[in-house]
Amino acid sequence: MDKKPSLQVPTGDTSFVPPAPAHRPSFEDEAVDGWGFRDTKFVVQPNGSVVLTGTRYNISNVELPSLMPWFSKKLAAPLGYENRNEPHYPPPVPEALEAPALVAALRAFLQEDQLSDEPTVRLRRGHGHTGAEIWAIRYERLGRVPDLVVFPHSHDEVVRLTEVARAHGACLIPFGGGTNVTEALRLSVHERRFVIAVDMRRMNRVLWVDPVNRTASIEAGATGRHIVTELARYGLTLGHEPDSLEFSTLGGWIATNASGMKKNRYGNIEDLVLDMRVVTAHGVVERPGVGPRESIGVNPRNFMFGSEGNYGIVTSAVVKLFPVPEVQRYGSVLFPDLGAGLAFLYELQRSGAVPASVRVMDSTQFQFGQALKPVTTGAAAQAKSALEKFFVTRVKGFDPDKLAVATLVFEGTRAEVDFQESTLYRIAERHGGMKAGGTNGERGYQLTFGIAYIRDLTFSHWAIAESFETSVPWSRALELYERVRDRIHREHAQRGLPGKPFFTGRLTQVYPSGIAMYFYLGFYAKGVADPVAEYAALEHAAREEILASGGTLSHHHGVGKIRQDFLGEVYSEGALALTREVKKAVDPDNLFGANNHGVKGQVELEAPDAPRTNTRRTGT
Amino acid sequence: MDKKPSLQVPTGDTSFVPPAPAHRPSFEDEAVDGWGFRDTKFVVQPNGSVVLTGTRYNISNVELPSLMPWFSKKLAAPLGYENRNEPHYPPPVPEALEAPALVAALRAFLQEDQLSDEPTVRLRRGHGHTGAEIWAIRYERLGRVPDLVVFPHSHDEVVRLTEVARAHGACLIPFGGGTNVTEALRLSVHERRFVIAVDMRRMNRVLWVDPVNRTASIEAGATGRHIVTELARYGLTLGHEPDSLEFSTLGGWIATNASGMKKNRYGNIEDLVLDMRVVTAHGVVERPGVGPRESIGVNPRNFMFGSEGNYGIVTSAVVKLFPVPEVQRYGSVLFPDLGAGLAFLYELQRSGAVPASVRVMDSTQFQFGQALKPVTTGAAAQAKSALEKFFVTRVKGFDPDKLAVATLVFEGTRAEVDFQESTLYRIAERHGGMKAGGTNGERGYQLTFGIAYIRDLTFSHWAIAESFETSVPWSRALELYERVRDRIHREHAQRGLPGKPFFTGRLTQVYPSGIAMYFYLGFYAKGVADPVAEYAALEHAAREEILASGGTLSHHHGVGKIRQDFLGEVYSEGALALTREVKKAVDPDNLFGANNHGVKGQVELEAPDAPRTNTRRTGT
Repeated sequence: MDKKPSLQVPTGDTSFVPPAPAHRPSFEDEAVDGWGFRDTKFVVQPNGSVVLTGTRYNISNVELPSLMPWFSKKLAAPLGYENRNEPHYPPPVPEALEAPALVAALRAFLQEDQLSDEPTVRLRRGHGHTGAEIWAIRYERLGRVPDLVVFPHSHDEVVRLTEVARAHGACLIPFGGGTNVTEALRLSVHERRFVIAVDMRRMNRVLWVDPVNRTASIEAGATGRHIVTELARYGLTLGHEPDSLEFSTLGGWIATNASGMKKNRYGNIEDLVLDMRVVTAHGVVERPGVGPRESIGVNPRNFMFGSEGNYGIVTSAVVKLFPVPEVQRYGSVLFPDLGAGLAFLYELQRSGAVPASVRVMDSTQFQFGQALKPVTTGAAAQAKSALEKFFVTRVKGFDPDKLAVATLVFEGTRAEVDFQESTLYRIAERHGGMKAGGTNGERGYQLTFGIAYIRDLTFSHWAIAESFETSVPWSRALELYERVRDRIHREHAQRGLPGKPFFTGRLTQVYPSGIAMYFYLGFYAKGVADPVAEYAALEHAAREEILASGGTLSHHHGVGKIRQDFLGEVYSEGALALTREVKKAVDPDNLFGANNHGVKGQVELEAPDAPRTNTRRTGT
Repeated sequence: MDKKPSLQVPTGDTSFVPPAPAHRPSFEDEAVDGWGFRDTKFVVQPNGSVVLTGTRYNISNVELPSLMPWFSKKLAAPLGYENRNEPHYPPPVPEALEAPALVAALRAFLQEDQLSDEPTVRLRRGHGHTGAEIWAIRYERLGRVPDLVVFPHSHDEVVRLTEVARAHGACLIPFGGGTNVTEALRLSVHERRFVIAVDMRRMNRVLWVDPVNRTASIEAGATGRHIVTELARYGLTLGHEPDSLEFSTLGGWIATNASGMKKNRYGNIEDLVLDMRVVTAHGVVERPGVGPRESIGVNPRNFMFGSEGNYGIVTSAVVKLFPVPEVQRYGSVLFPDLGAGLAFLYELQRSGAVPASVRVMDSTQFQFGQALKPVTTGAAAQAKSALEKFFVTRVKGFDPDKLAVATLVFEGTRAEVDFQESTLYRIAERHGGMKAGGTNGERGYQLTFGIAYIRDLTFSHWAIAESFETSVPWSRALELYERVRDRIHREHAQRGLPGKPFFTGRLTQVYPSGIAMYFYLGFYAKGVADPVAEYAALEHAAREEILASGGTLSHHHGVGKIRQDFLGEVYSEGALALTREVKKAVDPDNLFGANNHGVKGQVELEAPDAPRTNTRRTGT
């Protein structure tokens, strides 16, 4: 008989309240002029090497000689130390409207440091992280930003804030990590009301943890990095790891209907959130308790996923937890081409052995990863040949312009991970896969977080770039990839843009009925009259190809305002009418006036006489 | 290298339209006066043995000598051949209202056989399968039933029907399998409008199947048994197996927010339904396509789960499919007591090896299963000793009044099932479990379908009985079980009911944060003035204990009208206000007037001067 002691079920109320933190969280370490942490930034050295400053990431603080040469080759453009597009943050910030009576009413229950009308504080709450927004704050301006930023400390303060805002005819915009890539936070230039951004990040307490029943109630402003740290104290994890994990918040994940990279093991956000507390125009939507799964009529919880600030403010949520896995292992597999990688995923999906994360990158993304390696033996000038040498010596038989690479994260009990590994590698072998090791796998997975800083680097060297994503049935996936790639090249040429477009894709999630696909798109924009409009036209063309290939409007980024003009293509008139009526019912005065996903019609983000409109559909 | 050929991904549009069936489905083989198929019924023989007529189930057409003696012992009441409570179905059926102009408008596009105002046809669409409803149609009457039953053949007919109903101020009630146990179909006696029941079951086509992307679009009136048969032709399954599988429909599962017994592998209904087409008061809610997973704003799909007929009529849904599993194996394990069974589930849940179905029954339910065995060696009189002999000889060391038994269904690839089996039995052993074989496991799982007929048997012999369920966090599960059991015994005694109450429970589902629990409750009711009211009082008391023990209002049965008076205990005022406003927005005229889950306030199912009210809260 197995001598491992049996696990018993403790009884009664097994939840407890963790000790309160000594002080409110500070976000001073976060950058306001670009992605991520203030201390972390890609900088090009005079020798052409790139260094990611700080020490936070696996590629931090080492010389990366190959990156700029590789980018230059890919973009057919002279990216380098001298050729700089110096940002001039902060831009001019629109004046705040004044509402003295409202502000006085807020001061009745908020401390001095809970309100701010500082221009850069307001600016930061007026945008997310689309390329257009970051370009705007670095090189142009935003047409409208919030008039006041409020930092509530508790649910009750949000309730009172909402009452005051309603009484004074103001508009409330919840703000979490500010990492959305949908222009969800961007304000209409026609918004005449006093706009209050509600920065939720001081509400980051774990209200209670129940380690036996593996649930916790967590305030909605808690960032992913905070949640990971707090839960780890108790040997627990939420398991939700979007790319933005460090900065995005629980409330933001709900509003965006987010997906985490380890969703195979832990589920997407709608699978993880059992219940939530929401301040709405009809009062507080909450429940005294919540069960593992329920059938209790139409549950307002269901309305909040993807609501993008339109319905109210989530102040806390009850989430499922998981034990920190007994075993975590990384892995990677090289495939001859993307088609083989896709077929591998297809077979893996029906095996019952899908690991926590499995992603397949195309050859460009593989090379991108190689270009991010410090080459210890040579200088920048040798980078290209060093890269070639790598392919020749290490990856025999694979064409570096065709291969694909899978990065793998296994989590679970030892037996579970053993089963998944042996099953997965057997399937990989059938598809011509060659094991490329755990070190490469770990590096590939962790690179996700460092790569997020690259966009800001390219901006500073005249390349505009952005990511976008979709989900698609298995049988249309390769077609979609190829159509998007070809359309981008065609559009890029037809529009007479400089150099060559940068395009790469990866297969990031598996589902029974298909996959999620993630793209990076960029081009060299020096001399281009309106880089943002040109980028938007390219992405718009790409989205047309996506929809024509059976892809979806978004897998996890959401709609916001950036994709609102496609809603008529993915919903029937009846569906749009119904959601409009529901928004009216939930929020009759449009108090929560983020105006996302088109419920109030098209949103003008720039004045009609400004050089471009919100959708920037300057293309076909 | 593994020589199994690799699985490739076919490309393009891989869906096809299955051939249309030769004729519309008939439901003549279904009983109208009780559960299930017309040919299947438990009948007590003069010798006291019970026979389940027909040949459909694993206990059909054999003498079951132990059942009635065992029931008699358990209930401390003389259940037997002579002591009968003969049903007198059909009861008087309320006259139909007349609406000649409306009916003429319907006849403009419907065939003669698509409309019926036959009393028993209307009666059947006016109730589900609560004990109260079945008791009413057998021994009493219903106060209000639909005035007309319409059988649409297509989505377009539902659209036209909805337009006509709205134009004439009628009320529409969708009807699927009629198997709900929430009084969801029961009409208020105060409903003055002309009520049309929309029987969806002729809409049972599989509209398309995509075997590559494992999706299908299926009309909402398709029953589970039809879906299983149709999909099996293509080696596919939906995997959704509620107890009511044979009779309930896809549309009903969505409206009820249903759960299937194999949800560990396939998911609950909200996990399985990717999209749906719904006829609402705002027009048709539908989408031109659907992806594996999407973030596309507030998706009206989310409103429909648990909507219980309040929001519109689902006409078809796109569902996920799975390959028919390579391997299916059954198993069973005996545990010393229910606590050990619970601890086994708790440990299993975190192993990554949870099989498609795992359920743990208490000792009474185990004995119930034994009492349903044909005893080939003896007559009815010997049943008791035969049963005792079984325990002595076969289940050494287990106390038959304390033990618990797990029935297991494994499905998947061979490797997956091997991994699950070995992991599970190792965990079971740690909790004192003893393997009891695949035959017992299969019998236990399949018995679910046969047992559903027992309630009608007990009614006919003066015992009123019903099931109810909940979900509960792990740490409160045993407490809940014991409190419900004890409260029922206490209430039964205090109310002076005859004999002893019948009570049994099983742990039916596992989730990270807890389990689902399913109960049977009954008592001998001969001489009781109002058995239905007494039963309702007992179940109401049980629900109070459930809520007080951290249990939920329902895991999968839903709310309907039977649990509406508890809604204030599980939702905040703000949540109830919000759902009321949303219902008004979605359906301003209450065209879909099923009036479930309290959105229009309490619903009177019987006239105030009738012997009892809808809630029958005659107890404390």
